[in-house]
Amino acid sequence: MNTLVILSHPNLSESGSQQFLINAVEAYEQVTVHHLESQYPDGKIDPQAEHELLKRHQRIIFQFPFYWYSSPSLLKEWQDVVFGGEDFYRQQGTILKGKEFGLVLSVGVSEKEYQAGGREAYTMDELTRPYQAIARHMEMIYLPCFGIHQFAYQSEAKRKQLLIDYQYYLTGRQPASLEHRTNWLVNELRTTNLESLPMELSDKIEAIAVDLKDRQEVLADLKDTLAEF
Amino acid sequence: MNTLVILSHPNLSESGSQQFLINAVEAYEQVTVHHLESQYPDGKIDPQAEHELLKRHQRIIFQFPFYWYSSPSLLKEWQDVVFGGEDFYRQQGTILKGKEFGLVLSVGVSEKEYQAGGREAYTMDELTRPYQAIARHMEMIYLPCFGIHQFAYQSEAKRKQLLIDYQYYLTGRQPASLEHRTNWLVNELRTTNLESLPMELSDKIEAIAVDLKDRQEVLADLKDTLAEF
Repeated sequence: MNTLVILSHPNLSESGSQQFLINAVEAYEQVTVHHLESQYPDGKIDPQAEHELLKRHQRIIFQFPFYWYSSPSLLKEWQDVVFGGEDFYRQQGTILKGKEFGLVLSVGVSEKEYQAGGREAYTMDELTRPYQAIARHMEMIYLPCFGIHQFAYQSEAKRKQLLIDYQYYLTGRQPASLEHRTNWLVNELRTTNLESLPMELSDKIEAIAVDLKDRQEVLADLKDTLAEF
Repeated sequence: MNTLVILSHPNLSESGSQQFLINAVEAYEQVTVHHLESQYPDGKIDPQAEHELLKRHQRIIFQFPFYWYSSPSLLKEWQDVVFGGEDFYRQQGTILKGKEFGLVLSVGVSEKEYQAGGREAYTMDELTRPYQAIARHMEMIYLPCFGIHQFAYQSEAKRKQLLIDYQYYLTGRQPASLEHRTNWLVNELRTTNLESLPMELSDKIEAIAVDLKDRQEVLADLKDTLAEF
C-alpha cells in the first residue's frame, strides 16, 4: 500500500513538529510526502499532475497545522482546483473511490480543551466535519483523525510513542487493532537494519513489549469474562 | 449599525447569486461590500487595512460560495493573515469582541440534502462549526447562518423574499423577531423613494402584509393558549 501525504505549511523549515514527522517516514519508500507550498510557490496548482499522484496511492493523508479550525489556504486552493474540474468529475471513481483518507493535524492547544466546557468548546471531530463530508462525497474510508497536540511541550517518551504511532498511521493496516499493530511491529523489527539504527530498534522493541502487554491484558479480561459464566 | 460583507468569490462576474446579492444592498450606505479577489488580485492581504475596516463596522459577514464545505482559499488566507498577527492579538478586544458575526452561503445543493439520511449527511450547522468556533474565540455574537440554496432554480417569488430577507440579515436588528422585522419593514417603507423604486416598494408592502399576517397568527395562537387556562 502506497501513502500520499499532502502536506500544507507556509513555513515548513520553522516547524519542529513537521520536521519531526518528515524525518519519521523518510526511510519508508511507500510514503510520498508532497509539500504544496514547496511544489507551488506561486499558488498555481496543476490539477492533472495531482490527479496522477492521487492515482498512484491508496491512502491519502492531509497533513497541516490546524489554523483557525481548518487548513492553510493553499490546501483549500488544492481542494477546489483538484476536485473541481470536469476531468476529476469524469474520473472520480478511479481516482479516490474506496481509498483511505486521513488527517494529521498539529494543534497548538491541548486536547482536553476540545470538548464541551473546554476552552475550544467543540471536539476535533466536530471541527473537522468538512473533511469527513469530503471523504463521504468521494466514497473514501475515513480514518480516525491523528491529532498532535502541543508538540513543543511533549516529553521525549511521548515523542517516541508519537513516532511509532505516526509511522503506523501512514503505513500500518487499518483499523489499528491489537493484532494489526503487533503484526506491523514484528514486520518493522524484521526489516530494521540492526547495525545502522540501534536506537530506533530499541524503541520498537519497547513498543512491542507495551503492545504485547496490552494483548496480555485483553486476554486476561477475556479470561475473567469467561470465568463469570 | 454598519455592516461589513467580506465577500470571497474567484469569478464574481459569472455568479448570478452574488450579482443579485450585491445589487440588493447597493442602496444601503451602512453596508460595505468588500470583495477580496478584487481587492487583492495577487493574494497578498494587508492586515492593517483589514483591521481598520473591521473597526469601523459592528456586524461582520463572511459571504461566499460553499466550495467543498468551506470558503474559497482567499478568505481562508484572509483569516490566517488578519487574525494571525501580533497586532491583532493586542487589539483583539477592540476589533471584534461583542460584535455580530454571520455567514451568507450560496450552496449548489438543496437544503433538504443537509441532514442525516440526505445526500450530504451533515447539517449546514455541523459543517460550519469552524466559523462558530472562530466567533466564539473572538467573543462575537454568532447569527443564524443565511444559506441560499440553488439560487439558479429559484422562482421569482422566492427571489423577492430572498431579497428582503438578505437586506434584513445585513441591516435589521437581531434576533429577527416579529417585532424587529415589522419595525424594520415600516422604516424601509418610510425611507423608500416612491417615484424611483415603485417595484421594490410594492414588494415591501407585500412583505409587510405577510409579516403582519404572521403577527396575527402568533397573536391568535397566544389567544388560544390563554383560553386553555
